[in-house]
Amino acid sequence: MSLIVMKFGGSSVGTPERMQRVAKRIIESHKAGNRVAVVVSAMGDTTDDLIDQSKLLNPNPPAREMDMLLTTGEQISVALLAMTIHQMGHQAVSLTGWQAGIRTEAVHSKAKITDIRPDRLFKEFDAGNIVIVAGFQGMTEDGDITTLGRGGSDTTAVALAAAVKADVCEIYTDVDGVYSTDPRVVKCARKLNEISYDEMLELAHLGAAVLHPRAVEYAKHNNVKLVVRSSFTQNEGTSVKEEAVMEQGVVVRGIAFDKNVARISILGVQDVPGVLANVFGALANNGIDVDIIVQSGVQDGKADFSFTLSRDDKEKAVSVIKSVREQVPFEEVTSEDNLVKVSIVGAGMVSNPGVAATMFAAISEIGVSIKMVSTSEIKVSCIIAAEPLQDVVRALHTAYGLDTAEQVFVGGPQDRR
Amino acid sequence: MSLIVMKFGGSSVGTPERMQRVAKRIIESHKAGNRVAVVVSAMGDTTDDLIDQSKLLNPNPPAREMDMLLTTGEQISVALLAMTIHQMGHQAVSLTGWQAGIRTEAVHSKAKITDIRPDRLFKEFDAGNIVIVAGFQGMTEDGDITTLGRGGSDTTAVALAAAVKADVCEIYTDVDGVYSTDPRVVKCARKLNEISYDEMLELAHLGAAVLHPRAVEYAKHNNVKLVVRSSFTQNEGTSVKEEAVMEQGVVVRGIAFDKNVARISILGVQDVPGVLANVFGALANNGIDVDIIVQSGVQDGKADFSFTLSRDDKEKAVSVIKSVREQVPFEEVTSEDNLVKVSIVGAGMVSNPGVAATMFAAISEIGVSIKMVSTSEIKVSCIIAAEPLQDVVRALHTAYGLDTAEQVFVGGPQDRR
Repeated sequence: MSLIVMKFGGSSVGTPERMQRVAKRIIESHKAGNRVAVVVSAMGDTTDDLIDQSKLLNPNPPAREMDMLLTTGEQISVALLAMTIHQMGHQAVSLTGWQAGIRTEAVHSKAKITDIRPDRLFKEFDAGNIVIVAGFQGMTEDGDITTLGRGGSDTTAVALAAAVKADVCEIYTDVDGVYSTDPRVVKCARKLNEISYDEMLELAHLGAAVLHPRAVEYAKHNNVKLVVRSSFTQNEGTSVKEEAVMEQGVVVRGIAFDKNVARISILGVQDVPGVLANVFGALANNGIDVDIIVQSGVQDGKADFSFTLSRDDKEKAVSVIKSVREQVPFEEVTSEDNLVKVSIVGAGMVSNPGVAATMFAAISEIGVSIKMVSTSEIKVSCIIAAEPLQDVVRALHTAYGLDTAEQVFVGGPQDRR
Repeated sequence: MSLIVMKFGGSSVGTPERMQRVAKRIIESHKAGNRVAVVVSAMGDTTDDLIDQSKLLNPNPPAREMDMLLTTGEQISVALLAMTIHQMGHQAVSLTGWQAGIRTEAVHSKAKITDIRPDRLFKEFDAGNIVIVAGFQGMTEDGDITTLGRGGSDTTAVALAAAVKADVCEIYTDVDGVYSTDPRVVKCARKLNEISYDEMLELAHLGAAVLHPRAVEYAKHNNVKLVVRSSFTQNEGTSVKEEAVMEQGVVVRGIAFDKNVARISILGVQDVPGVLANVFGALANNGIDVDIIVQSGVQDGKADFSFTLSRDDKEKAVSVIKSVREQVPFEEVTSEDNLVKVSIVGAGMVSNPGVAATMFAAISEIGVSIKMVSTSEIKVSCIIAAEPLQDVVRALHTAYGLDTAEQVFVGGPQDRR
């Protein structure tokens, strides 16, 4: 008898028909002899509707009260899902985050889970119940309701799986699994059977939206076996685990891209100690996240920096930089925002020299120039002009032998949302 | 400094404008130097919408899951009301039933409050917060969420007021207070300044919908001073307390009526011990509530009974009675459903003989015959034909001197819902 945690997102339970399909899926797993805990998000647009209601009364509400409001969305989902399972003749019990023993730090709207006390879950398993837990929420030691912020339901599922020592944590989504790249861009993108936590982390951070990076980190840290699969098909999905098998001769697992990239360059900066800390400290204090940072060599006591960031933050970042000109004397600040980041990811890279060279060659063959490069042990990212992104991704997919692998993507782009 | 509990129903917070009006009202009371706890129901149609959603998935859902679902309605109200108060520059904190320490028995959909642990409320008062508590809900010792059933939010308010030893529990509604009779029927119906718990109980049971009988009983038992008043005006409302002052020369406080009455008569019943127990036991087992029961004298070992009940239950009751004919031999069962019950209520009655005679005379003068009579120490009820009810109520209002009292109803019938 296995213990399985299943997680369904909001679009999987957005209509009565989808709710019923999810219920059937859960019952199948229960009938197969498993103990089953299910984590659910708020249905469809519930969260947005609640936010709209609150905006009419307070455009800037206290985070504590927002958490009180938004957690009702998941409570509605779990109650309705438990009722649906009852209607199909099986026993289920719904639990809020606090009822499921999920304790968090006392931070509203983005609390971290500190502890899970799974006694109630085991009591319900022993009574033969399927347990339906509200995702995205927990309770502080003082009895206040908190939310976990973005990716919260994925994190709830992984944390519960760790706490009850589940055999697997299945993340159900509206795609078949994790793909070698976005199938809307490359038709022959293929679903991966396996991927390592680290690769998944790079892909998740790089814009493949199937699984939140926080949940992947939590899974890696607690060695929870994850499977990403579709709520709508019986396909096997993608296993995410510590060591993922690579196919023969393939060093790159997947190709990710991020279309929301701007670059800022600060030219002719006086090279004195603390310069970088001054600039990036000021940006951080203004809530601006920076991605890739590149510093050229120092010449005549002056250096050039460039960094990338989200396009929305570009204007603000330029004014912040101008505001620190007294502490950080520089000659000029320039910016550019019609850029993308394309990345190759694969744990096999580390032992295969020349992987980056293949990337640079493939990109330059299309006549695209590379503006910035950043590397880690398992990825290489290039910043390039936004067009022709599609040609670049296709070329890389072919160059790394990803087109020809056995398991080819069968659905069309309309299967993804 | 007083401690005040204010309770607002669902229609008082049904739109953003109403929510803001309620928030202003609460802030006024807080600024006057009071510690304020507020109990709120679910907004407008929220509860009905949730019930509709559940019906699509399970027409007969488990009560535990229904409680999980419906309690989100009040949680949404309290969060939004707290946000509205913040927007107006004052501190408020919302609490669910369980956060407010409301413990109930382990019965779903109609739990009774067993205990209130008000520590959290006092902590919030000490921090200068207005406390907004979700009505209608509590938690069992095992940590399950319950609802209190009909009138639950009134009961929450009164129980909280008792637990924190509030100076007064104000029930805000869409009418100005408790009236001498329904102002839609008698134009010069007047608002009462005071009424005793017992009188209010009789009026509440008899169809004056401003305050739930359970809440009145709880208030009487714990000696909580209640005030019923309007959310929409500054009028003083009606005080409900142990001893209410009667105006000079007035013995009847108010006139109530119930239009949903049917009568069943069982004729020629063998008068053997246990007959009543058999009949009314069978009705109770079928969930049928009986109101007035009248038994005529026994003649030749046979008796006639009559009783009244809700019109909806009439057909079912007749078949239940026929089904027990073997244990309870009788000659005939008859029924009639175009009836009403009209009642006079007043604590002064007990020391004033002739009060009932005035009622009978006033009714017979209009040419209406009385079919059944029931009396208690503080009320007389008559069952009469449904028409002309309005004339009967008006005649009684005049006969007992209620038309001429100082405080006359000023709004039209459109002020009531």
